[in-house]
Amino acid sequence: MARRASERPSTRRTLTAWPTDGLSYGGDYNPEQWSPDVWREDVRLMREAGVNIVTLGVFSWGLLEPREGEYDWGWFDEIIGLLHDAGIAIDLATPTAAPPGWLLHAHPEILPVDAHGGREQPGGRLGWCASSPVFREHALRITRALAERYSDHPAVRLWHVSNELGGGNGRCYCDVSAARFRDWLRVEYGTVEAVNAAWGTAFWGHTFADIDHIEPPRGEKHKANPGLSLAFERFSSDELLEHYLAEAEVLREHGDVPVTTNFMVGSGGHVVDYSDWAKHVDVVANDHYTIVDDPVREQDLAFAADRMRGLTDARSPWLLMEHSTGAPSWQVRNRAKAPGEIVRNALTHVARGSDGAMFFQWRASTAGTEQFHSAMLPHAGTESRVWREIVQLGDALRRLRVIAGCPVEPAKVALLVDEESAWALRQGLKPHRALQYSREARLWHRVFWQRQVLVDVLPVDADLDGYDLVVLPTLMIVSDAQAARVDEFVRGGGTALVGYLSGVLDETGRVRGGGYPGAFRDLLGVTTEEFRPLQIYETVRLSDGAEVTDWSEDTNLHGAESVITYADGDSVGRAAVTRNAVGDGTAWYISAPLPLDSAARIADRLIAELDLPRAVEASPAIEAVRRRTPDGDVLFLINHSNDDETVNVSGRSLLDDASFDSAAVVPAGAVVVLREGTAG
Amino acid sequence: MARRASERPSTRRTLTAWPTDGLSYGGDYNPEQWSPDVWREDVRLMREAGVNIVTLGVFSWGLLEPREGEYDWGWFDEIIGLLHDAGIAIDLATPTAAPPGWLLHAHPEILPVDAHGGREQPGGRLGWCASSPVFREHALRITRALAERYSDHPAVRLWHVSNELGGGNGRCYCDVSAARFRDWLRVEYGTVEAVNAAWGTAFWGHTFADIDHIEPPRGEKHKANPGLSLAFERFSSDELLEHYLAEAEVLREHGDVPVTTNFMVGSGGHVVDYSDWAKHVDVVANDHYTIVDDPVREQDLAFAADRMRGLTDARSPWLLMEHSTGAPSWQVRNRAKAPGEIVRNALTHVARGSDGAMFFQWRASTAGTEQFHSAMLPHAGTESRVWREIVQLGDALRRLRVIAGCPVEPAKVALLVDEESAWALRQGLKPHRALQYSREARLWHRVFWQRQVLVDVLPVDADLDGYDLVVLPTLMIVSDAQAARVDEFVRGGGTALVGYLSGVLDETGRVRGGGYPGAFRDLLGVTTEEFRPLQIYETVRLSDGAEVTDWSEDTNLHGAESVITYADGDSVGRAAVTRNAVGDGTAWYISAPLPLDSAARIADRLIAELDLPRAVEASPAIEAVRRRTPDGDVLFLINHSNDDETVNVSGRSLLDDASFDSAAVVPAGAVVVLREGTAG
Amino acid sequence: MARRASERPSTRRTLTAWPTDGLSYGGDYNPEQWSPDVWREDVRLMREAGVNIVTLGVFSWGLLEPREGEYDWGWFDEIIGLLHDAGIAIDLATPTAAPPGWLLHAHPEILPVDAHGGREQPGGRLGWCASSPVFREHALRITRALAERYSDHPAVRLWHVSNELGGGNGRCYCDVSAARFRDWLRVEYGTVEAVNAAWGTAFWGHTFADIDHIEPPRGEKHKANPGLSLAFERFSSDELLEHYLAEAEVLREHGDVPVTTNFMVGSGGHVVDYSDWAKHVDVVANDHYTIVDDPVREQDLAFAADRMRGLTDARSPWLLMEHSTGAPSWQVRNRAKAPGEIVRNALTHVARGSDGAMFFQWRASTAGTEQFHSAMLPHAGTESRVWREIVQLGDALRRLRVIAGCPVEPAKVALLVDEESAWALRQGLKPHRALQYSREARLWHRVFWQRQVLVDVLPVDADLDGYDLVVLPTLMIVSDAQAARVDEFVRGGGTALVGYLSGVLDETGRVRGGGYPGAFRDLLGVTTEEFRPLQIYETVRLSDGAEVTDWSEDTNLHGAESVITYADGDSVGRAAVTRNAVGDGTAWYISAPLPLDSAARIADRLIAELDLPRAVEASPAIEAVRRRTPDGDVLFLINHSNDDETVNVSGRSLLDDASFDSAAVVPAGAVVVLREGTAG
Repeated sequence: MARRASERPSTRRTLTAWPTDGLSYGGDYNPEQWSPDVWREDVRLMREAGVNIVTLGVFSWGLLEPREGEYDWGWFDEIIGLLHDAGIAIDLATPTAAPPGWLLHAHPEILPVDAHGGREQPGGRLGWCASSPVFREHALRITRALAERYSDHPAVRLWHVSNELGGGNGRCYCDVSAARFRDWLRVEYGTVEAVNAAWGTAFWGHTFADIDHIEPPRGEKHKANPGLSLAFERFSSDELLEHYLAEAEVLREHGDVPVTTNFMVGSGGHVVDYSDWAKHVDVVANDHYTIVDDPVREQDLAFAADRMRGLTDARSPWLLMEHSTGAPSWQVRNRAKAPGEIVRNALTHVARGSDGAMFFQWRASTAGTEQFHSAMLPHAGTESRVWREIVQLGDALRRLRVIAGCPVEPAKVALLVDEESAWALRQGLKPHRALQYSREARLWHRVFWQRQVLVDVLPVDADLDGYDLVVLPTLMIVSDAQAARVDEFVRGGGTALVGYLSGVLDETGRVRGGGYPGAFRDLLGVTTEEFRPLQIYETVRLSDGAEVTDWSEDTNLHGAESVITYADGDSVGRAAVTRNAVGDGTAWYISAPLPLDSAARIADRLIAELDLPRAVEASPAIEAVRRRTPDGDVLFLINHSNDDETVNVSGRSLLDDASFDSAAVVPAGAVVVLREGTAG
Repeated sequence: MARRASERPSTRRTLTAWPTDGLSYGGDYNPEQWSPDVWREDVRLMREAGVNIVTLGVFSWGLLEPREGEYDWGWFDEIIGLLHDAGIAIDLATPTAAPPGWLLHAHPEILPVDAHGGREQPGGRLGWCASSPVFREHALRITRALAERYSDHPAVRLWHVSNELGGGNGRCYCDVSAARFRDWLRVEYGTVEAVNAAWGTAFWGHTFADIDHIEPPRGEKHKANPGLSLAFERFSSDELLEHYLAEAEVLREHGDVPVTTNFMVGSGGHVVDYSDWAKHVDVVANDHYTIVDDPVREQDLAFAADRMRGLTDARSPWLLMEHSTGAPSWQVRNRAKAPGEIVRNALTHVARGSDGAMFFQWRASTAGTEQFHSAMLPHAGTESRVWREIVQLGDALRRLRVIAGCPVEPAKVALLVDEESAWALRQGLKPHRALQYSREARLWHRVFWQRQVLVDVLPVDADLDGYDLVVLPTLMIVSDAQAARVDEFVRGGGTALVGYLSGVLDETGRVRGGGYPGAFRDLLGVTTEEFRPLQIYETVRLSDGAEVTDWSEDTNLHGAESVITYADGDSVGRAAVTRNAVGDGTAWYISAPLPLDSAARIADRLIAELDLPRAVEASPAIEAVRRRTPDGDVLFLINHSNDDETVNVSGRSLLDDASFDSAAVVPAGAVVVLREGTAG
Repeated sequence: MARRASERPSTRRTLTAWPTDGLSYGGDYNPEQWSPDVWREDVRLMREAGVNIVTLGVFSWGLLEPREGEYDWGWFDEIIGLLHDAGIAIDLATPTAAPPGWLLHAHPEILPVDAHGGREQPGGRLGWCASSPVFREHALRITRALAERYSDHPAVRLWHVSNELGGGNGRCYCDVSAARFRDWLRVEYGTVEAVNAAWGTAFWGHTFADIDHIEPPRGEKHKANPGLSLAFERFSSDELLEHYLAEAEVLREHGDVPVTTNFMVGSGGHVVDYSDWAKHVDVVANDHYTIVDDPVREQDLAFAADRMRGLTDARSPWLLMEHSTGAPSWQVRNRAKAPGEIVRNALTHVARGSDGAMFFQWRASTAGTEQFHSAMLPHAGTESRVWREIVQLGDALRRLRVIAGCPVEPAKVALLVDEESAWALRQGLKPHRALQYSREARLWHRVFWQRQVLVDVLPVDADLDGYDLVVLPTLMIVSDAQAARVDEFVRGGGTALVGYLSGVLDETGRVRGGGYPGAFRDLLGVTTEEFRPLQIYETVRLSDGAEVTDWSEDTNLHGAESVITYADGDSVGRAAVTRNAVGDGTAWYISAPLPLDSAARIADRLIAELDLPRAVEASPAIEAVRRRTPDGDVLFLINHSNDDETVNVSGRSLLDDASFDSAAVVPAGAVVVLREGTAG
């Protein structure tokens, strides 16, 4: 191992052409479940719906290579031919997410092992250890065979490496992984002394005499040394990235078809650190599913899309590779979508930079684990609301083709997220182990989203040039360099809003001494001398009348002014929210999980003080974003309420050619997309 | 393996005589816990209580065969002699539920292995894998030895094979079981291609190249292929049945004593499919315990009894082998019974077809795992309410001996239940994984039970002749033939009431395409295009004012009329309950989990329209059932309320010789059993 | 194994001198985490705070013996020298709680194995099986090396064997432990027949043919034979005690420095039976941490302290070895202390007999598993409330040195606790598996604590001479001899208050027949014929207006009078609380978990009837205890309320030299310590 996978230079190749003409529309297509006559009906219905691309081959390994080294291409050739003849592009998947039964039978040692030593059983997805040389050899052989056969096929417009890498094999604690982990430690730290120093192993007497004595953090995770845990998380992301890179390299050796893999980007922490991965995919692609008990699912869509945009170069288009037409089946109570929700959800992603909207999957399975997962063509067939909305969406995307390739308007607000902080928060002993990493990120995104202020959700290392406000929610791990860049941003005139628990740890996971929030203490002009986690039944009142739960702090002012104070409880009289003038800028500290109203008042003040641009001035129920085309802006207005809403805009509707002189009515639950300018 | 155990022809032998004269009364007797002087006191007290049968030997293996092949019969002979001398019949158990310590020490490989690879530890019950040839050999040797010694003993009136088969060893995932499972698959499917087709393994790329590559569904159950899960459930039931049949065969080779084993039949899904087992026992016997958090425990008793009756030939008597006099100890908070509850509970079973009432166990243990389980003779001894009620119950059963051998009156309502549907509902990814199989079955049984309308709870393959109404609650798996029989029943003039999620899967567990409820779509004249599971905090209002939780559907009418509609929510305006005239009959569809009031109104309408017979017309607190004797009907009236209730009947009380001219007062919490006819 | 470790005669050596002059003040000091310049700052700050002792070496093994048999003493010598030069005593720990990485790498078999066969992974504390001969050898070698080097060092004033023995390795189910367990059984029972008889193995057919066939109670604990479970708990305590004794013996061979180990005594059941251990430590020492969801944490402190006093000879001083200055990190939501709470908590222990107050740890770690655990010197440094209170506490302890070595005033109330009863209650099938052992003990302690009546919390075998009242809460296991001593106490004029579930089991864990509460039936003049556990939603009203949850009983009077009856529910009309005159004394039975008010009324009656002494007569918010010095009594008054409280006392404040003529105001949250007598 010469260097960490995450530190390799970008392997991204510049896109010569987007995989489809116009916006991409389609879904996963798993025809091996069906007979050839169904294939023909599928293609006919795809055309009816306006589908122009499908992802093929995700689960085909066992049928393409029924025995080791023996291939059966005939049926696959036929399907590819049918699609090509119908003008449907193919996003061709290497089938490595689903190792064939013969491979698992011959090599059960490739199955991942959990932290308690249990080896995963066949029957899931991604049943392989990313460090397994046996699996790697087999995976690259089928990848090579597929590339040799289809890389020049004109229908193949995109390579789709495996599927949701890490979704099932995100961590492996087997002995092969352990040996690789030790190699990784040697690269990262050099000597055992450096490991001991970084992890503070002297505590609990865990000093290692040799890197060979180190094992992954097996057993109960919350007892592990936090430095070890963090290193193992980084290693695991790197190992999966190594696998991706190995497959991608084979594909790239065989031609110029762009290469992607489908990320799983949402609000929370992720299984891998996509900020290291994004530079290696030619098209940044995402799978996104809402969670039933998320009370603001529509904002989760916007958040994920804004975060995907933050993973692209120059905010260029990305691709929504999977979402759903209705209920998935992997949740306990799987929610169906409401009428109109399919279109709203898809266009939220498109408005925020996706050049397409794809689904899992084309036709609902009747068997297999996901037999109850929704699809573009449901069990009920074409006589269904879902199908009618799918046809309607296909029509809408065709009408919106003018935005293809065009960027979203620039944002003035950046919100920094970081996988490592999310990992750190959820692992090991913490002041409060039940805090959710996404809580603060979602809160601050939400107050701006409700005010039609666009937010770029960025990796912590992103460039802050051009932004007026940067928000750092629960950014627990911060390096000196990262902290210095925020400091510089503020001194240069920017405004930073720093949430509790930010800056507390350095990049090795050690607490920064001298009082919290460590790295940002000077910038913020405050010191927290003690955290006060609240019990599940406790609330603390603030001076603005709000009540906070879960967390509070004993904060001292060192130059900052207090904006909101604690009005009762053991921290009574101390500052809960502070504001500090620094250089030409301002730095806010938020020491408590504010309720929505409190955060909204702060957002209003920041919008006013910083003159942050709103896409439109409308009700909080209206989501509004612009994409910039050479012919002017295209404005998306999405009404999330059950009432019609009027918005003061003028232009021509792209979806139905209606014109608006000075105001547009966006019907309840509807989407209006305007070419702005004089109506007509 | 020539054929599946469940497909073997019946081995039931016609009963020449019921094990006791009159109704059976007694319990499990485990004298090895006590000294010989206690045995003598036991027999004396049994006679005082009217006990005429005990189950002996369940836990005696290690004492009867203290070392492999060496037997110690003396103490057992003595006990059998004591009982016989006292005129107490013996239900003699093969002791195979409790393998001796020396066997587990010598052969730990017979212990079952769970889905995660953990081998069960010695110290429980049924600590053996049903597929183990080693255990089988030892079990049949002690069975043979026991049969040779006691099959001609006049006190031995019933053989009791092992104990609660499957209660502890219902599923085994060891390698021996896995090999047997593959043999079973070869019998069931023939080829690996047939397996792949039936299970739809193409999805998630799980196509098997060889049956030898198939393993049991180890690991997290909800991720497994549903076809594989279902096959493994069927296999597991078959393996336990094989074991039962092997022991039964040995016993039957030694004489004509009837053979039984104690089922564990309740409201929910069972560990094995008793509908396959019932034809192999000479007496159908049951163990029944209520669950503390069941809010209508008294109906659970009735439901289980009605279900037991549905497992007998021609609704002939069955036997309640175990229930409790008070608190068990295997629940977290074990509920004692209220005064009078012992008698009410026992007579509920008797009224509904049990020719006896037996308990676990005779004398409360002072040591061992169940040292706090209630018993006929409690820790407190005879100076106790429990003992007085046991004596009272013995007296009541003696007075009711006229009903012995007599059938329960015929029911006009059949309610179909199916283990496979219960298994399917609880395993794998589902639209809603928290639904309870028993919810709908209990609901519809309850509304009729409250109206004194008798319901036969039948296996799905049962004959429907003679019924006016058949209820199919959550009958998820239905074969074409089963669906056709329901169709024929309705066209011939019957009424069917079909609950949500019925008919959705075929017999291999595949979704039936074209819209739900698949197999019953045409019969019902509706199509559900999409399920709408409700979240834990969601309710939907219906047009009849009721509110439903958990589940709703987007149903379209294709000929049916809407009886109740959804009044709000995403399905607003659609039908929630429908009614369809088909041939000479009617088919109802219930797309939502109705609350009790809604279901009660439908029950009232069905009772009126179909003229369904009520045993009596009384308050819902009165449970009423008749048994038919050659000398006329015997009516059981059980008052579940805290108030006296008056019922318009005439006849003579069998329990206390009181006479009723035209009305009987059933005191609060009491049971009245009437020989109907002119009073006196 | 010649005899059980717990049965060995005392090895306690009489203390020639307390480890410090005056009260001990300090904490765990783990300098290996820091650089030598920090060590010097540490010593300076320790002096500033008044620290006079630190516990050193707990986590130092891997650094003191970096490779097997090779020692590095230099850095340790330096630290010991620095401390000694500053006049700070050393409580020197054998570092065996933290085996070095090289030992775990070479001998992973020393790691404990859980009940399901999972071997613990390196990375925690106490990662070793107490039965491992390999670990023992290594542990005694480092102990010997340490003793040889430092036993004569003048700074070393106390030996601290390992750390919190059992906290992480309380139970080990490995094969080495299993073999040792069988040896233990041979010592305890002699023959397999005796085992079978004691455990009632005939039930469930578990009769053992040979002790060699017995395994630890692996698997699901609640299914195990209760006799086996109890024996394994006793064995496990004995094995850890054996380890302690082996280390202590090595230390004692090297000189006269007193030896201790830090217990973990609280309200609940403990991992080992400290009543067997206390006689083997020269100073009885405790670690105490409150639990965040304990609603009366201040009473938990008093309870633990009163229990520690009960473990000493003649109520002599003990030592609080660890508590916390604020939030620990091992709970889910770790509570910080309120202002003033540090002093209140520490002085609660001192008032009740601790001759010192020590903390974990001196300086907050920045890395390692406990990087967020509070400390005397927090992350924020000396500019913090915590530091200011630590300095204040140091000053207070210096002022209180007059009480060093002096006893707490004698108590007239004894409350008996028993580990074995706690183990029995929480393991195996029980009438109610959710009952908490500490519930009743805390309740009765609390009503007296609120009334300033001192309670000695004693092991069940303690001498009852001199007490007026003895309380037996949930004393499930009682031997005949123990029961006889209570009987004798009452007949001799004492009063006993016996809680539900007491006396139910004999010392082998068998139910005592003939009705509950078995051993105390005659003494109490009652018989409970049936337990009535209440469901989670159930309450039962009492005749005194109170409502009880969780538990009730069907109790019959046999001579006792009923004091409170059940006013509704299935036990309506029966006695809930009874009182029985026996000999010259009185015996109360409490059959239900009384709410605080009911218990308080009973406490008031007992205080009046028995004339129990109150330290002062004050509000329930005032905690009051005296220590007896040769110069008169020193009264501690601790105000737990948010209001100032006035107490009628006179004397001179030791903390600030204020004088009180007839009444002292104890400010809200404050502690007043008075030298009683004429003010000034």
